[in-house]
This record gives sequence, structure tokens and C-alpha cells, in this order.
Amino acid sequence: MRALDLIKKKRDSGEHSREEIEFLISGYTCGDIPDYQMAAWLMATWIRGMTRSELAALTEVMLYSGEVLNFADLPGKKVDKHSTGGVGDKTSLILAPIVAAGGLIVPMISGRGLGHTGGTLDKLESIPGFNVNLSLDQFRHVLRECGMGLIGQTAEIAPADKKIYALRDATSTVENVALICGSIMSKKLAEGIDALVLDVKTGSGAFMKREQDSVQLAEVMVDTGRRMGKKVVALITSMDQPLGRMAGHSNEVIESIEVLSGRGPADLRDLSIELSAWMFYLGERTKSVDEGRRLAETMIATGQAKEKFKQGIALQGGDASVVDDPSRLPSARFHAKVIAEPAGYVTATKCEQLGIALAMLGGGREKKEDAIDPGVGLEFHKRVGDPVKKGESLVTIHYNADAKLAEAKAMIAASYEISSDPPRDVPPLIRRLIGT
Amino acid sequence: MRALDLIKKKRDSGEHSREEIEFLISGYTCGDIPDYQMAAWLMATWIRGMTRSELAALTEVMLYSGEVLNFADLPGKKVDKHSTGGVGDKTSLILAPIVAAGGLIVPMISGRGLGHTGGTLDKLESIPGFNVNLSLDQFRHVLRECGMGLIGQTAEIAPADKKIYALRDATSTVENVALICGSIMSKKLAEGIDALVLDVKTGSGAFMKREQDSVQLAEVMVDTGRRMGKKVVALITSMDQPLGRMAGHSNEVIESIEVLSGRGPADLRDLSIELSAWMFYLGERTKSVDEGRRLAETMIATGQAKEKFKQGIALQGGDASVVDDPSRLPSARFHAKVIAEPAGYVTATKCEQLGIALAMLGGGREKKEDAIDPGVGLEFHKRVGDPVKKGESLVTIHYNADAKLAEAKAMIAASYEISSDPPRDVPPLIRRLIGT
Repeated sequence: MRALDLIKKKRDSGEHSREEIEFLISGYTCGDIPDYQMAAWLMATWIRGMTRSELAALTEVMLYSGEVLNFADLPGKKVDKHSTGGVGDKTSLILAPIVAAGGLIVPMISGRGLGHTGGTLDKLESIPGFNVNLSLDQFRHVLRECGMGLIGQTAEIAPADKKIYALRDATSTVENVALICGSIMSKKLAEGIDALVLDVKTGSGAFMKREQDSVQLAEVMVDTGRRMGKKVVALITSMDQPLGRMAGHSNEVIESIEVLSGRGPADLRDLSIELSAWMFYLGERTKSVDEGRRLAETMIATGQAKEKFKQGIALQGGDASVVDDPSRLPSARFHAKVIAEPAGYVTATKCEQLGIALAMLGGGREKKEDAIDPGVGLEFHKRVGDPVKKGESLVTIHYNADAKLAEAKAMIAASYEISSDPPRDVPPLIRRLIGT
Repeated sequence: MRALDLIKKKRDSGEHSREEIEFLISGYTCGDIPDYQMAAWLMATWIRGMTRSELAALTEVMLYSGEVLNFADLPGKKVDKHSTGGVGDKTSLILAPIVAAGGLIVPMISGRGLGHTGGTLDKLESIPGFNVNLSLDQFRHVLRECGMGLIGQTAEIAPADKKIYALRDATSTVENVALICGSIMSKKLAEGIDALVLDVKTGSGAFMKREQDSVQLAEVMVDTGRRMGKKVVALITSMDQPLGRMAGHSNEVIESIEVLSGRGPADLRDLSIELSAWMFYLGERTKSVDEGRRLAETMIATGQAKEKFKQGIALQGGDASVVDDPSRLPSARFHAKVIAEPAGYVTATKCEQLGIALAMLGGGREKKEDAIDPGVGLEFHKRVGDPVKKGESLVTIHYNADAKLAEAKAMIAASYEISSDPPRDVPPLIRRLIGT
């Protein structure tokens, strides 16, 4: 077998066998196949696509390129959730304690934020002392103690994906359904989980702007997970505006604590409960999704989820007292308001622009190596459909440095579409279920 | 400007500006853009294609990546021919002396053979002492003395193409009309010529098997050359069977001498005269192509072309006495016949297979680093349309080592399709003219 012939095959829209995929991925990971050949193959694959069975083979080979965790010794099913990311999406911080409090194991390997999206690891690190860089032994200990653990990808997990992702990033071959699916699923399945709930975002703040693309990605991820013997469903959810009222790192921890305390904005609470309910159901903790919803609500109402969050924070070295006293989290020194110019109704937001404005202020990364200011954040006062009066505040900016404040303010103001008539219909937060 | 964005643009079927092409090609040539980014761009370009103006920019940037020869001080127009290659195609060895004898300058930079095709440089090197590695100063001297010179690509000529071609070869991005055109035309235009005649092969022994692909390549090459102010026409010619009766290095020099002596097979003679005629016409040596044909025939009939060939050989260090005594060329020790099994008519040949069989016997290169045995060759006794008797010889193999003889014999035998009925029609050698 020669890489050259396999590149040609994919270039000419051929379908690879499992052995061919293994040859390519293993050969690249161990250094036998050079970057330039892999780059040509990635571009051919980006353009020509992959069949479902090629994709299952890709995912499996990347998965077994590293260590696949096994928590069979821990009692209870292992479940996780993956979101394709957006602005203000902090559901991981809420559902991990809910589901662990409900009796399942949540071994969550998360990512960092880049561009307009935030990352779970970065948000957790706004909690003083919180350590996301646990060894796999430490991770196992934390899971055994409290049923939830949140760490970053280690060198042992899917090293093939790590190397290939870096190359994709440098060759404009990132945004492709098959390659995205293989990357996500190989990492998630390495967690040794029994079931996975996918939150595939769609809309102006999602990577996939068009619902049809999000559905396609959801379908291939569900199919790929099931081919590997896992229970998987996907929710297609709206990212046409920020999720919840808060974006930024401390801000999102605070809002997560709000929801875990039985308060918080309805959209964030609803989605967190819905995702938890599916995790309970797929993890066979409840007989129905509806029962799962009730269990999730109970975990909040009784304070058990909040206690679980404290326990999890403490086990990962964090200051758990922030849960009762969020003022202990880093905050920004200055606040500024973005004011509505005309009166009317919010009809849409350019949600990605809001995330970029946040990153620009230091509350996110423009480049991988950028440092994050956890205190920087945005507070959204108006949702799509809300009426606004002239001069009313749309957004409060929490900031520390004013170098880019004017630019960010202008960008935020321009992100709100305001019309004299209310929008005809606001699409529901949960658009579709895939794989049910 | 970032390579990453340009890769994305081509991936998404965008059209590059001249500046973007220059950024990519110059950046890659000087090492600023790494192999893997160029590989991704090449694959995107292979699949998405290039517009005519992108292609003209690509050719121009590759051309001016190195030295562009200038023979303005030599009297007479400078003309050349380029063939896309096939089996038994030795017209360069015939038309260079014809056209130089007729008063034009032929500064020919040629290539080597690979796979099933032979290369002009390799054929010339079967002449004892012939040096194709002249410096540009030596090349100029030879051209001044005799009007013809045949050398290989030097480091000064189109270095961008040289680097990009090596990467294409390693990433399955060779066979693409735009990239082939850019590569050929940048090298040919570096010769400082006024006019170029293209011989674009089509059929079972050509790189382009389908006539429509050959026509497309011819059209873009003619267009690209004209955009750069050159006179260019293309002949689409048949490579459904070997050109002439001889293949192999010494063999092809011998057959070229035959044609220059007024003998030789009709197809080879006809094509050589036709290509020479177009060179005379585009080089403004004659007022019509027809007058060009007559001039070419006169150059042969009077012996002037043959004398020019001797002169050219001698100026490049070769033993010119081979022209009068071809037995001085390297020859093979053994001969073997490939016999027709059934009687009937030759209806077609798998011409590429004949070239591969020749390479297998040592008369060509399977890999770039292979050495060539110049004495090894094939002698074809039957052409498409010819009747064959049972047991009659189709091909005589000239060989030195019998390790692969049986395999080559079987391959050659299987390359001839013999039917009880003669073929309905044999397409003409010259199929179409492009750009006239």
C-alpha cells in the first residue's frame, strides 16, 4: 500500500477500505507518512467527503491510536455530552453535577475556547485553584469519589487526532463534517462512555450556520457512535443568540451556579435540564426522558446538584466556596453599557460577532497562544423578540482595559438588529432531535 | 495575505488574483510557505481547477522564478516544439535539424523519460559522448554555431516549477490540465522563443487517453502562450499505437536518422514534416504551412537536415559518425520475437502497456533513479489495420537481460487486439489543429 495511491483514490472520489484508513492514519501518526502527503489527502477528503463506513473506520483508528479509558470498575453507566460550541454555552458546568448527583458517572474531557466560542476548561480555570490537567489516575480518583470529572485532552488520548487536527488547522481543512465528526467522536469515545448526548448548535453563533449542515453533522456523529456500540442522540439547538444572559469566564460560572441554585435564565435552565434528561435516559438511570427531566429538576430543587458541583470543584483543587460566594471569582474593574439607538424589537443578533467582541476585550482567544482575562464578560439584557426603548441598555460590558472598548462596543451595537415590528416567529431553542 | 486564506479560497472554488498566485508560488519557492500548505493548495487546485487568467498568472510567475533566456543577438526567429509524450515519439530528433537547416533557431530544453514514455535527453545520450548538460553559455554557443541545441532543464530555468513538480509527484497532483500547462509552458517560454508548436498526444499510449482531455489541454496551452505574446498552435495527434516502427533509445536515434535520410516509416515522417512545417510558418520562415512542408521535405531531400544533425551532435560532444554508421550506437545482444496467436487483423494496441514492457526490460525508467539500457528496444512489425498470419511476428524485442523477458513478452502479446475482421476505420494520425 502506498500513500500516493490512496491520495489519488480519494482525489478521484473513491471509497477507502478500513485497512487503507488505518494505513494512512497510523502511518501519519508514527511519522512514516509526511505532512505534505497527509495535507493533500485531507484536502481531497475535505472536498470529496467520506462514506459512513469510512468515517467509522477513521474514528475507530483515531480512537485506538491512544489510550481508551475503562471505568468498568466504577458503579453506574458512564455518560457524557458534547456541544459544538457557541456564545454563552455553559451547560457542561450545570449538567455534569446534575447527572453525577443523579447517580451516573460523567467523565468529561473538554476543550478550550478559540475564536468566538468559549471553552469549558477555560471557564473552570476562573475558579481559583481548579486544575483541569489531571493525570488519568487522578481523573479516575475524582470520578470514583464524586462521579464527575472535567479535564483537558491528555497526550495519551487520541494522539492521531491531535496531530491531524494541528495539520488541518494549518491547511484550511477544518470545517468538514466527516473530519469534524472523526475528531470529536474519537476523543469522546476514548472516555470509555456508554452513552453520549450531542448538542449540535445551529445559527449565527454556531460553526454551522445553516440548520441543514448541523443536521448532517448530527446524523453522521450519531451514526458513527452507534457503529461503535454506543447509545447516542443529538439535539439540534439554536445558537442564533447567546445562551443565557452571561458570557465570559467568571460570568458563566456565576450563571451556572444560578441555575444549579434553581434560578437563572429560562433558556439555559431548559437546555441544561433537557440535556441532563437525555443523559439519564441513555444512561438507563430513568425509563423515559420525561422521568429524566423530573430527576434533573429534583437534583436542582433539593440542592444535590449544587453540592455535587462543590464536591467536584474541591476534588480538582478548586475553591468550592465560590459556589456560595461568587464574588470570590475574578471580576472586571469597569462596566460600560451598549445602548439601543432606535426603539423597537430585537429581531436577530449576529451572535458570532458578540463572541468575537468578547474575545477582543480579553474574554477569549483570537489566537491559540493568547491569555484569557477571566473577569471580562458580557451581560445580555435583551433577547430576540424583546421590546427595547430608545437609550435602553442592550449589553453591559465588564472590562479591564479600554484599548479595544470602542471597537467592541461598536461591534456589539451592530450585532443587534432592531425593527419597529416584533419578529414574526422566534424559532424554538431545541429545533430537532436526531437519532431518537 | 496568508497562505491559509488562499488555500481556503481555492478549496471553495474561488478565483485567485495575480498577486495571490505570486504570493503562493514565490512564497513556496523561497521556503516561506511549507510543503504541507502547498500540498493542500495543489490538491484543491487539482480538484477545483483554474481559470485562464489564473493559469496565465501561474505560468508567468513560474517562468520569472528563474532565468528567461534571451537570444535576441542570434539572427532568425526562435521556435520550439513540445510533445506531451508517448511511445516511439522521436520527432524532436528529426525536426530540430530540419528546422535549424531551414534557417530558424531551435533552443530546445527537453525532459527525461518516466513510466511508459521515453525522453529526448535519454535518447540523445545513447549517442556516445553527447552532453545534454550544457551551461547556458555553452548552449548559447551551440545555438550560434548551428541553430539547434538540445539540453536538460538547468537549475536557473523555472526553479518554482522544479520544486512544485517534485511536490506534485509526491502528492498525486500531477495529471491536471492547469498544473500540467503551467509546468510545461513556464519551462518552454523560458527558452526565449517566439513561437511554439505543441504536439498533444491522445489515445491509449498518451497521458490523456480521451481526445476531449487532450483538446482541453491544448486549448489552455495555446491560450496561455498567446497571453504571453507567443505564437502557438497545437496538433492533436494519435498515440493509439507507437509512432514509427522503433522504440528504445538507440533504436529511436536510428529511426530518426532513417527519416533524416529520406527513408523511415510514413507516420513518423509525415508527423515530423507537419510539425516542422508549422514551426517554419509560425517562425515566419515561410508564408504558409504548405510552403513549410515543402521546405521541410527539401531539407531532407538535399541532405541538409542530416548534415545539421551531425553538426549539432558534434557541437554537443557526441560522436557524429553514428549518423552514417548507426552500428556505433549501443545495441542489445539478444533478439526475441512476440508471435501472433490467432490470425486476423490488428484492430488496436494497448500502447501504454508496450511502453511499460519496454521500461521493464531496461529500456526505460520505472522509478526516477533507474538507469536506462540504451540498447534495449522494441521493433514493431504490425500497425493497426495490418493483417497478421498465425505465427507471424508482431514485435521483435532487443534485450540484454532475460529476468523479465517472459513477463514483458506476455504483456506485449496482450497489448495487441487481433480480430477476424479489419477495423472499421483507423483514425488519422493528426486528429485536430487547435489555435489555427
